[in-house]
Amino acid sequence: MAKKIALFKEGRFNDKGLGKLLVHDSPYFRIINFNLKAGQTMPVHNHDVEGQLSVTILEGNGFFLGADDAELPAAAGDILIADIAEPHGFRAETDMRVLVTIAPPL
Amino acid sequence: MAKKIALFKEGRFNDKGLGKLLVHDSPYFRIINFNLKAGQTMPVHNHDVEGQLSVTILEGNGFFLGADDAELPAAAGDILIADIAEPHGFRAETDMRVLVTIAPPL
Repeated sequence: MAKKIALFKEGRFNDKGLGKLLVHDSPYFRIINFNLKAGQTMPVHNHDVEGQLSVTILEGNGFFLGADDAELPAAAGDILIADIAEPHGFRAETDMRVLVTIAPPL
Repeated sequence: MAKKIALFKEGRFNDKGLGKLLVHDSPYFRIINFNLKAGQTMPVHNHDVEGQLSVTILEGNGFFLGADDAELPAAAGDILIADIAEPHGFRAETDMRVLVTIAPPL
């Protein structure tokens, strides 16, 4: 059965750390909405497994983070696609809403 | 190798039909950006295969469409998740940018 989630309503910010909303989890993909207050960071990390992920900026701006302190500007409408095994992260310059899709889920 | 795509720049609208940008295609997922002028529609359709899809509204508003003329309001930040086998579509009320992720790809 199809389901709709209003991320701008249900996705919460948190002064003490990233707001995280598990949007969906199935054998096909896991979808997570992260809501970062300005200055908050999802630190660079990776997992040594098969699969890929997309990181879509829904609102606000900041940076995509990668290995060796790499940074790419990230603004609403930008999407980053990477192997799950590649180092990845993101940092918010303004309040920023992010949608991450992982396939297959870890 | 990670790649970044600026959808608000690379995703084009088309007066004669939906603007379609294939963002990514891999064994894990296919990601497509549709850009609809106000009034344009992705008609309700489905595919009789395993898997699920997400439909995320990046900008603008309109409706998610389903079986039996079902309509759900769709605005920026809204996401719909459905089985690929379920009837799905969308219609733009204003110019609307949509991101569709299909896992696994058809």
